[in-house]
Amino acid sequence: MRAVDLIIKKKNGGTLTREEIKFLIKGYVDGRIPDYQMSSLLMAICFQGMNEQEQSDLTLEMLLSGERIDLSSINGICVDKHSTGGVGDKTTLVVAPLAAACGLKMAKMSGRGLGHTGGTLDKLEAIPNFRIALSPRDFFRQVEEISLAVAGQTANIAPADKKLYALRDVTGTVEAVGLIASSIMSKKLASGATHILLDVKVGDGAFMKDLDSARELAKAMVAIGNRNGRVTAALLTDMDQPLGSAVGNALEVIEAIETLKGRGPKDLEELSLRIVSELLLMTGLENSEEEASARAKRALEDGSALNKFRQMIEYQGGDARVIEDYSLLPAAKITIEVRANSEGHVRNVRALAIGNAAMLLGAGRVTKEDEIDLAVGIKVHAKVGDRIKKGDLLATVHGNEKNLEEAVDMVRSAFEISDQKIVPNKLILDVIK
Amino acid sequence: MRAVDLIIKKKNGGTLTREEIKFLIKGYVDGRIPDYQMSSLLMAICFQGMNEQEQSDLTLEMLLSGERIDLSSINGICVDKHSTGGVGDKTTLVVAPLAAACGLKMAKMSGRGLGHTGGTLDKLEAIPNFRIALSPRDFFRQVEEISLAVAGQTANIAPADKKLYALRDVTGTVEAVGLIASSIMSKKLASGATHILLDVKVGDGAFMKDLDSARELAKAMVAIGNRNGRVTAALLTDMDQPLGSAVGNALEVIEAIETLKGRGPKDLEELSLRIVSELLLMTGLENSEEEASARAKRALEDGSALNKFRQMIEYQGGDARVIEDYSLLPAAKITIEVRANSEGHVRNVRALAIGNAAMLLGAGRVTKEDEIDLAVGIKVHAKVGDRIKKGDLLATVHGNEKNLEEAVDMVRSAFEISDQKIVPNKLILDVIK
Repeated sequence: MRAVDLIIKKKNGGTLTREEIKFLIKGYVDGRIPDYQMSSLLMAICFQGMNEQEQSDLTLEMLLSGERIDLSSINGICVDKHSTGGVGDKTTLVVAPLAAACGLKMAKMSGRGLGHTGGTLDKLEAIPNFRIALSPRDFFRQVEEISLAVAGQTANIAPADKKLYALRDVTGTVEAVGLIASSIMSKKLASGATHILLDVKVGDGAFMKDLDSARELAKAMVAIGNRNGRVTAALLTDMDQPLGSAVGNALEVIEAIETLKGRGPKDLEELSLRIVSELLLMTGLENSEEEASARAKRALEDGSALNKFRQMIEYQGGDARVIEDYSLLPAAKITIEVRANSEGHVRNVRALAIGNAAMLLGAGRVTKEDEIDLAVGIKVHAKVGDRIKKGDLLATVHGNEKNLEEAVDMVRSAFEISDQKIVPNKLILDVIK
Repeated sequence: MRAVDLIIKKKNGGTLTREEIKFLIKGYVDGRIPDYQMSSLLMAICFQGMNEQEQSDLTLEMLLSGERIDLSSINGICVDKHSTGGVGDKTTLVVAPLAAACGLKMAKMSGRGLGHTGGTLDKLEAIPNFRIALSPRDFFRQVEEISLAVAGQTANIAPADKKLYALRDVTGTVEAVGLIASSIMSKKLASGATHILLDVKVGDGAFMKDLDSARELAKAMVAIGNRNGRVTAALLTDMDQPLGSAVGNALEVIEAIETLKGRGPKDLEELSLRIVSELLLMTGLENSEEEASARAKRALEDGSALNKFRQMIEYQGGDARVIEDYSLLPAAKITIEVRANSEGHVRNVRALAIGNAAMLLGAGRVTKEDEIDLAVGIKVHAKVGDRIKKGDLLATVHGNEKNLEEAVDMVRSAFEISDQKIVPNKLILDVIK
């Protein structure tokens, strides 16, 4: 087998076999296949695509290139939830304790990731003394005892994906549905859950800008999951405007706690409840949408979800008093209010502009080495469809020294006010099972 | 400017500017842009193509990456002729002296190339003591005095093309019209001729298998030449069956000499005369097709073309007695006749199979390091459309020890005999000006 022949096969629209994909991935990881052949193949895949079988094979080969987390010793149903990423997306902070309170096990190992704000791990680190480094033994014991743990990844998960992703990043081959789906799913399959719910974000602040391409990605991921013996489903959810109100690490922790207290933003609460309901249906813990939804709501209302969050903080060494006292979290030195210059209806709160503003303030990472300022961020007070008067508060920028003025300008530019009444997008656009 | 942005631009169907192409080619030659970015860009070009301006810009940047041969000091009109390569294509051996005899200057510097047989240089080396290594001074003086020289390339022509071609070869990105056209034309422009006639081969034994893609390539090359101030035209010529009868280095030299004596195969004579006629028209030495054609024919009939060939051999140190005594050329030890098993009409003489058989015998090179056996090859006696009887001679295989049986089988497999009368393809399929 020669790599160049496989490149030409894909270039001409052919289908790669399992053996061929194995040859390519193993060869690439071993260094026998050089970057310049892999990048040429990746570009051919961007144009010719991969069918479901190829995507499944690629996912599996990337998975097999590294370690896998074996959750089979855990007594209960281990579920996982993954978002393709959006602005203000702190859903995992709500969903993990809510799912645990509903009888599911959430044993989540996360990476750090790049983005407008930090990832789930970074957000949790805003809580004083919260430890994300757990030994495998502590991790498993915690899941057994309180049904949830969110910890940093120590295993060498899917190194082939890591190497491929770094190459895709510099060769213009990031955007190809099959490659994105295989990359995400190789890590999800390695993380050991038997039931996986994917939250595919759509819109201005998401990787997928339109519903069609988001649906394509969701279908691809669900197919890969199901072909590999995991019950997998996906929600398509709106990301034209930020999710909830808070964008920034400590600010998002507060908002998650508020949601667990039943006082969070409507959209974040709706999405969290829906994700947990879907997980309850997928796992068969509930058999009807009504019962699943009721169980999730109950866990929010009776405080059991909040209690799970508190337990997780305690188990992971954090200061659980933050739940009652937000002043224990890092706070920015300066807050600047952005107010409306005119009256009307909010047509747009461009998520990408809000995200970029958060990034400017220091809330996120461009490269792995960047340090995050956990205190900074933006609170968005007006949502699409809201009627506002001149002088109404649109957003508050929480900043330290860094790029404050530019961030304020960018936040202002995110808002578009219309004369006409605006009907906002639905939050949950579709479900793929 | 970042390479990855330009890759994405091309991936999305954008047009690269002159500055961007310059950045890419200079960066690649300097090593600032790595192979893996260039191969990804090349694959994107395979799918999205390049417009005429991009192709012209790419050609020019590759040309400017190396040395150029300045023929302006030569008194007269310097023309060049280039074939995209086929089986039995010894046309340059006839055209160069014929053009010189018609008042044109043919100052040709050639590379060796890979293929079923050697290139023009290898063929000339079949002539005892023929020197292809000429000093620039001797080369120029020879062109001044006898109007032609065919010598090996010493200048560092288009190193960017060399580096790119090596990469394309291993990354499945050879077949893209714009890249092929730019690669050929960068070398043609560097070789200094003001008038360039391209012979684009079409069919089984050619790089371009069908007329449409051959026409596309021809148009692309003609456009590049004309945009860069060279009068350029292209013939599209049939390569479903080998050109002429001889395939193999020494055998082709004999056939070229026979053609210069007016006793060559019809198709080789027709093509050689047409190429020289076109050059006479392009340069304005003749104004009508009739006069151009007549002048070329006269140079063949009156022996002046043959005399030019003799002069070239003498100037380049070779033994010109070969013109009268072919036994001075290397000859194979064994000849095997391939005869018809049935009667009928020749439907096909598959050029690729004949070429591969010649390669098996040792007539060509797969890698630059391969040694060529100048003596071996195949004489094809039956052409498409010929009526043959059982036992008629189809071909003679001239071999030494190497792969003789396989070559004979392959030659036999090249012939297809039909019950029905066959009308052969036209030799000259189209002219692009």
